[in-house]
Amino acid sequence: MANEAAVRATTSLKDLQKRVLVDQERRLRRLFAREQKRTEKLDPELGVMVSVLSDLSLRGGKRLRPLLACIGALCHDAKADLGPVLAAGVSLELLQTYLLVHDDWMDQDATRRGGPTAHVLFEKHHKSAFLGERAAILTGDYAIALAQAELAALPCPPRNLRAALAAFARMQVAAVEGQRLDLLADSDPELTYELKTASYTVLGPLELGAALAGATPAQLKSFEGYARSAGVAFQLRDDLLNAFGDPKATGKPRGSDLRQGKKTPLVSEALRRLKGRDQKKIRLALGAQDASRAQIDEALTLISESGAREAIEARIDALTRAALKSLKRPLMKPLGRSLLEQATHELVERKS
Amino acid sequence: MANEAAVRATTSLKDLQKRVLVDQERRLRRLFAREQKRTEKLDPELGVMVSVLSDLSLRGGKRLRPLLACIGALCHDAKADLGPVLAAGVSLELLQTYLLVHDDWMDQDATRRGGPTAHVLFEKHHKSAFLGERAAILTGDYAIALAQAELAALPCPPRNLRAALAAFARMQVAAVEGQRLDLLADSDPELTYELKTASYTVLGPLELGAALAGATPAQLKSFEGYARSAGVAFQLRDDLLNAFGDPKATGKPRGSDLRQGKKTPLVSEALRRLKGRDQKKIRLALGAQDASRAQIDEALTLISESGAREAIEARIDALTRAALKSLKRPLMKPLGRSLLEQATHELVERKS
Repeated sequence: MANEAAVRATTSLKDLQKRVLVDQERRLRRLFAREQKRTEKLDPELGVMVSVLSDLSLRGGKRLRPLLACIGALCHDAKADLGPVLAAGVSLELLQTYLLVHDDWMDQDATRRGGPTAHVLFEKHHKSAFLGERAAILTGDYAIALAQAELAALPCPPRNLRAALAAFARMQVAAVEGQRLDLLADSDPELTYELKTASYTVLGPLELGAALAGATPAQLKSFEGYARSAGVAFQLRDDLLNAFGDPKATGKPRGSDLRQGKKTPLVSEALRRLKGRDQKKIRLALGAQDASRAQIDEALTLISESGAREAIEARIDALTRAALKSLKRPLMKPLGRSLLEQATHELVERKS
Repeated sequence: MANEAAVRATTSLKDLQKRVLVDQERRLRRLFAREQKRTEKLDPELGVMVSVLSDLSLRGGKRLRPLLACIGALCHDAKADLGPVLAAGVSLELLQTYLLVHDDWMDQDATRRGGPTAHVLFEKHHKSAFLGERAAILTGDYAIALAQAELAALPCPPRNLRAALAAFARMQVAAVEGQRLDLLADSDPELTYELKTASYTVLGPLELGAALAGATPAQLKSFEGYARSAGVAFQLRDDLLNAFGDPKATGKPRGSDLRQGKKTPLVSEALRRLKGRDQKKIRLALGAQDASRAQIDEALTLISESGAREAIEARIDALTRAALKSLKRPLMKPLGRSLLEQATHELVERKS
């Protein structure tokens, strides 16, 4: 395909990003159109499920994971065929949608990517919260099932398929473990972020791409240090964006993590730094589903003024330096390494 | 392995069944022990999740799907190596546990295989229904992630891996579609049963086994007619066992489907046959979560006396005959066909 040849020749991150965005949009649209046609013949309600999945997947999304999969392939082989990697990108996007749909229900989040979450859409559709949450869980289950079907059909040599599948399964296992820890009050926050975010946002996509370019298990290991640091920094940035970012860019109301009672490292840091009434104001806002906008904003201001925001920024910086340092490995091809260095800045300095 | 050689030499269904039971028990125990050790190092709560999964998987289960996978392999090749098929059996069992855990939460079922369901176990563990149901969904998610990890590690030639994966993914997609239809009041019951049950109980396991024995896509198609009929008959038997079977054998309280408001073909048939007060009694029991034991028992007696029970038995007979007839295919090896004929009777005449 001419498109893939063009992707191969690309050296700047911006160009690669643009091409991945166009490519994934096209592949996702094609997949959902096919599934819609197939399922509507069975029952119109299955078509509704596909359209909710399609809506959520196409509503936004930066296609970061397919991008990192391409970079993973180029780290291993500067002339890697990105065709199979882009095909696997669809499974990465479906994995992401699956996790988001289940997580949004778990967190009782009403907004995602600037629109209603799956359980909210289905609650309206069925005029029943009970049926709505069941439909949402099944929509997530459906997304991961489609992801597996797409993986089984990857256009790649059989020997690479096994390594790609193993990388995908590791991501899936770790992301579930991370989400489990995320729901518990006293789990280790950076371990949680490593499992919940670094695994399927950074490590897994890089490994999947490299595996499809023929990397050996030992070569896949070379991403681990990088991915852990960059992935945790990515999630810490996410926390800062949720608290202080532009809701239009993030697609979520400001401070929604706080309102849901998420004790992020940002909040823990603020609680450590504050005392008396100020600390109490944050404790009162934490998990207060029906707190007023003003109450949440006041708590966010206190968190920022406590120095916690700067402390997390400093932690992101340290993790970013560690991530970039761990890229100085002889095994990596210069093109891939250069793209990954550029991507690191995007991951940790993003505005959305 | 000596064990596998013995399985290969087996010709009677009883012997094969016994060996599959022992083999799967051993493999599942080994997997859960390994996962428990690995996850406990991360966080003790992850160890709890593994132990709930282990408890549910080992508490019972007839290992029907791994058995059918072995038969599928032998239908294609009388001397098939059952090693990879038995390894894939673990993924089938994990798929089953995943679906049961999510379904039990959807149906608000408290009992499974004679013990508490996952959301009930976790509700006690966390002293919170909210956290309990989230933990259960994640336990299901964890089971399907492990199933994928096991598939990626299947000891089989790469060319068979792809076909096995595709069969597994088709099962996963269909089972989710079927569960979706099962939650909706006015879906076509036999289509629902085909998707919800036949897909992953009969068709998928047979295809997976045959794929691992090297069957081509065309050869896999030869199971479709059989699997649809036998799978729907299997689910109709399930409905009868739920209403009239021995709760000790089924592991569920008698009439729990009725209490949950499941409009099974059995109930629909009874409603068609009854009028006036008798019909009203069934309508009142249907979905009455807090109905008395006597009220449920009376409704079940009315259903039986209406002739609906016999009508469903007759439908099972017709489907069984159709299933057996569709086995008369030149493509199938006599050993596999004979085992499948014997297994058909077990599937549709079982007591548990």
